[in-house]
Amino acid sequence: MIVLEGPAGCGIGKELGRLMGAKAFDVDFKSFPDGESRVRVIGVKKGDDVVIAQSLYQPQDKHIMELLFMADGLRRVASKITAVIPYLAYARQNKAFVEGDMVSIETVMKMLFDAGISSIITVEPHKYDVMEMFKGEGRIVGMANPMAKRLYGEIRDPVVVAPDAGGLERASKIAEALGCGYVHLSKERDRETGEISMSGELGNLSGKDAVVVDDMISTGGTAAAAVDAAISAGARKAVVAAAHLLMVGPAEERIRKAGAVEIYGTNSVPFSNARIVDVSEYIAKELEGLR
Amino acid sequence: MIVLEGPAGCGIGKELGRLMGAKAFDVDFKSFPDGESRVRVIGVKKGDDVVIAQSLYQPQDKHIMELLFMADGLRRVASKITAVIPYLAYARQNKAFVEGDMVSIETVMKMLFDAGISSIITVEPHKYDVMEMFKGEGRIVGMANPMAKRLYGEIRDPVVVAPDAGGLERASKIAEALGCGYVHLSKERDRETGEISMSGELGNLSGKDAVVVDDMISTGGTAAAAVDAAISAGARKAVVAAAHLLMVGPAEERIRKAGAVEIYGTNSVPFSNARIVDVSEYIAKELEGLR
Repeated sequence: MIVLEGPAGCGIGKELGRLMGAKAFDVDFKSFPDGESRVRVIGVKKGDDVVIAQSLYQPQDKHIMELLFMADGLRRVASKITAVIPYLAYARQNKAFVEGDMVSIETVMKMLFDAGISSIITVEPHKYDVMEMFKGEGRIVGMANPMAKRLYGEIRDPVVVAPDAGGLERASKIAEALGCGYVHLSKERDRETGEISMSGELGNLSGKDAVVVDDMISTGGTAAAAVDAAISAGARKAVVAAAHLLMVGPAEERIRKAGAVEIYGTNSVPFSNARIVDVSEYIAKELEGLR
Repeated sequence: MIVLEGPAGCGIGKELGRLMGAKAFDVDFKSFPDGESRVRVIGVKKGDDVVIAQSLYQPQDKHIMELLFMADGLRRVASKITAVIPYLAYARQNKAFVEGDMVSIETVMKMLFDAGISSIITVEPHKYDVMEMFKGEGRIVGMANPMAKRLYGEIRDPVVVAPDAGGLERASKIAEALGCGYVHLSKERDRETGEISMSGELGNLSGKDAVVVDDMISTGGTAAAAVDAAISAGARKAVVAAAHLLMVGPAEERIRKAGAVEIYGTNSVPFSNARIVDVSEYIAKELEGLR
């Protein structure tokens, strides 16, 4: 096995190499002044079992194209290509919400497969069933166990808060891993303006440490509103725990201003101003399962 | 036939609709705060013959993904999908220049075909033979005729200047269309630093209008150096004529500072500070030829 650390590999490729006792090396890449990417991979030999680590955080399209360039370029040489995609972009566009909507994640999944990728491993996708759109083999590393392990000892008497009903399953899993209960709010998002409004009752959270759980933080509006609601409901303190810290614009400021004392996330995105959980060992387990 | 004006259609889709007497409409699109694109197409019916106009100027990867989303999303509905790609990105990465280089344009061509695009029409690609990498039907609109027509009357006693030997065929075609001669310089580009050095003798150009011809202007370094050489060789004036005005950073300033009195280009890229040639009618002819 050879593990390639892609331009957006988040160091996970190198760590996987160490954990799996495999050769791991950096892919050489550059961006030309006009914005085109050039990817160069040296050292892959005929018949190699290749793992490419490449996360799809922003600029998503650039990172997707780099992954497609690598896979398509290596598929005539490699015996097998597995893509480790810690953050899977476009997973929210998993159906036509409005007539005429293109189902972006379906296209992304098709392109990955057509480029020669036969297996993918990702971390906490927005909806688990998007993996069914991938024609090859798909594995998911859930955020519940790595996150609960990281939170353990840093919070006491926790309660998990899901910002919307869609996040209930995620909340229940992490609550189970933490051995606590969970509550949820209701979120309405205007599909055009992106404006978020929250409603619902959390009950009395006094004396509790609220853990606001979501799959990703983009602009932070949802998480900030949930933190605000938890504190209003009497929580002793609130933290935010999300798999993917995209942290667009003033996301961090909004969340901290709302009263969150800490932000937790995985290393699927290179955001350093948080308590980071390295998911490499969990991915390594899935990688072993694929062999 | 239905013509879709993509998010990077440069108005060419709408103009094609008018020229072909076909329905043409804008694709509805937006960018989410985190950078993901959402494309929405309303009005395509089962069995429609669909033409999508989408240029691949910067941000190239975003424009490629939008095109893939549209084509892949429509391929189950449309009877045929033709992509009009006025500027074809990645055409310069058409071979492994250094061991391990991924051949990006090969992957782009494969993805376009796999997304359901059976024909593509493009304008003056960097190398014409990249079209052979496309499994479907490919047509090229050369820049020579549209550009010569546009230059006619605005220059006198012209001579075409190619910045490098690789551009000789392009130069000879445009010289033929202008009914004049052509000369060339030699360009050396350091593949790592991107630094350009020019050499070669243009001879005596006194009394001539030099037309510096290239397929694209990126940072403008090549064109500026060629303008400089033409003026040093005694040219009465110099203009730059390129199919694709990517105009990265201070490109325009560099070219004008070198002494070019005018820049000409096609509408494959939305750059307005130049004399623009609309290539829609030439594309329409190729579109008819495909029917």
